[in-house]
Amino acid sequence: MPQMKPDWIAVDWGTSNLRAWAMGADGVLAEAVSDDGMGKLAPDRFEPALLRLISGWLGAGQTPVIACGMVGARQGWHEAPYRAVPCLPVASGALESVPTNDPRIAMRIVPGLAQTKPADVMRGEETQIAGALSLLRDFDGVICLPGTHSKWAHISAGEVVSFQTYMTGEMFALLSTQSVLRHGMAGGGWDQTAFDEGLSEAVSRPEKIAARLFTLRAEGLLTGLTADAARARLSGLLIGIELAAARPYWLGQDVVLVGAQSLTNSYARALATQGLTARTLDATACTLSGLATARGLLGKVSQ
Amino acid sequence: MPQMKPDWIAVDWGTSNLRAWAMGADGVLAEAVSDDGMGKLAPDRFEPALLRLISGWLGAGQTPVIACGMVGARQGWHEAPYRAVPCLPVASGALESVPTNDPRIAMRIVPGLAQTKPADVMRGEETQIAGALSLLRDFDGVICLPGTHSKWAHISAGEVVSFQTYMTGEMFALLSTQSVLRHGMAGGGWDQTAFDEGLSEAVSRPEKIAARLFTLRAEGLLTGLTADAARARLSGLLIGIELAAARPYWLGQDVVLVGAQSLTNSYARALATQGLTARTLDATACTLSGLATARGLLGKVSQ
Repeated sequence: MPQMKPDWIAVDWGTSNLRAWAMGADGVLAEAVSDDGMGKLAPDRFEPALLRLISGWLGAGQTPVIACGMVGARQGWHEAPYRAVPCLPVASGALESVPTNDPRIAMRIVPGLAQTKPADVMRGEETQIAGALSLLRDFDGVICLPGTHSKWAHISAGEVVSFQTYMTGEMFALLSTQSVLRHGMAGGGWDQTAFDEGLSEAVSRPEKIAARLFTLRAEGLLTGLTADAARARLSGLLIGIELAAARPYWLGQDVVLVGAQSLTNSYARALATQGLTARTLDATACTLSGLATARGLLGKVSQ
Repeated sequence: MPQMKPDWIAVDWGTSNLRAWAMGADGVLAEAVSDDGMGKLAPDRFEPALLRLISGWLGAGQTPVIACGMVGARQGWHEAPYRAVPCLPVASGALESVPTNDPRIAMRIVPGLAQTKPADVMRGEETQIAGALSLLRDFDGVICLPGTHSKWAHISAGEVVSFQTYMTGEMFALLSTQSVLRHGMAGGGWDQTAFDEGLSEAVSRPEKIAARLFTLRAEGLLTGLTADAARARLSGLLIGIELAAARPYWLGQDVVLVGAQSLTNSYARALATQGLTARTLDATACTLSGLATARGLLGKVSQ
């Protein structure tokens, strides 16, 4: 518990997890996390789940709470309707106010972004993009956020111009743990050469991807392909077809990667094979910075 | 139970199911099925599982039983080592004899086929290919067996020259029931136009596949894409990238499809969009015909 009460509380509320930070004038005072993700909460269980985490931080007055992520989905606590691109990733007046039973919190949710054609949506990444832009200043280029559903976003004049989602992380999880390929992928090691080979194959011949996957199983049976090599090659193949499809996003662009370090390392290495040097920002730093941007837009009066 | 005891018993023993047929001089006398698939049986449970199904068919003498499928895998009842292509799909002298406790059966397993480069394996499809070849006579061309793991096989002079496996059916099952896409795919209807669109997209631009999948979810959220259309488009996309990767197999070839009717219909329609008219054979008919070929190779003396 922090020594002093926070000015406001930052919340990253995804499908699987809930993270909260007590924020003071100089940054983070305290942090708390639970597995009360949006995916398992009925609408009336969100406020209690949040209070379990943050009630120790609340004082006599009302504390602003700003949340991003799936908490604002239709199946979440309170729907924060998508904003249409092109637009600023986080905008004044667009925060969704959420009625609460506890008068000690003033709850707001950052809405996600939607694109009509090709149809696409994001929730949470808009806040990381806003955070990245506040950390980078005057950035024009492309922000890539690798993850379960990787996002690539074209940024110009501070706005998200267009974006595209890839199910790369989810495909990797399904194929490596639920499909026939799981038999040859147990363990947690990594074979960098195998990653590079898979990547190279998929970037140069993406139209062959459907023929590449079962080969991992067959090589395991016939030539003793190791689990580490099979898993790394699968990752390379899937990131490779993502890069192949995302070429219009990264070709000749200034690319910034936002995500967990192990993932951004893989993507940076993959982009390097295409002659592109990407910068990297930490996902949590971007989330906090983006939520602080939203907080700044609210103004101190509304506290 | 058949009126007369069968000459032999045909068995199709896959990962999920066990099917047996009592075979007489004029064909099938009786059929039985259970869910005792290879996937859930310890090695010593195979013989009891088989006897539960066929003991009523057994007479005083010894009855030959010929099985194909995953029953011959290393994790099955008794390993039937792969035979290397190019080779006949089912060959004299290659049937694997399996010791049994019950003296009333003479158990044999048809071995699967393996290819070194690119590494690939099949178990069960070699029997369907042998069956298709006995039904077609003097066929040179390509046999495609759509399914959980679709196989394409080049056939020349009665031999399997090369083959390639695609995880199309398993990918469809994982994506439509386990991934984020499942939210917009409930139900059992079908939108043929959506299938055709997905197919066309994927065949003409397979390198874009990674960008096409999440669009199904986003269109469900933003433009009300129906579950039937989403599921059919996903199927079209996945069959489309299979066709794109399998182009060297079907281009300019005589193609025969072997499989369940709903699947072979989809593949036939897909190939038709590429200007190719494929013939279709029933999967069970091919399995039985292939097992009969194996039975014929044994000779009647060995009974």
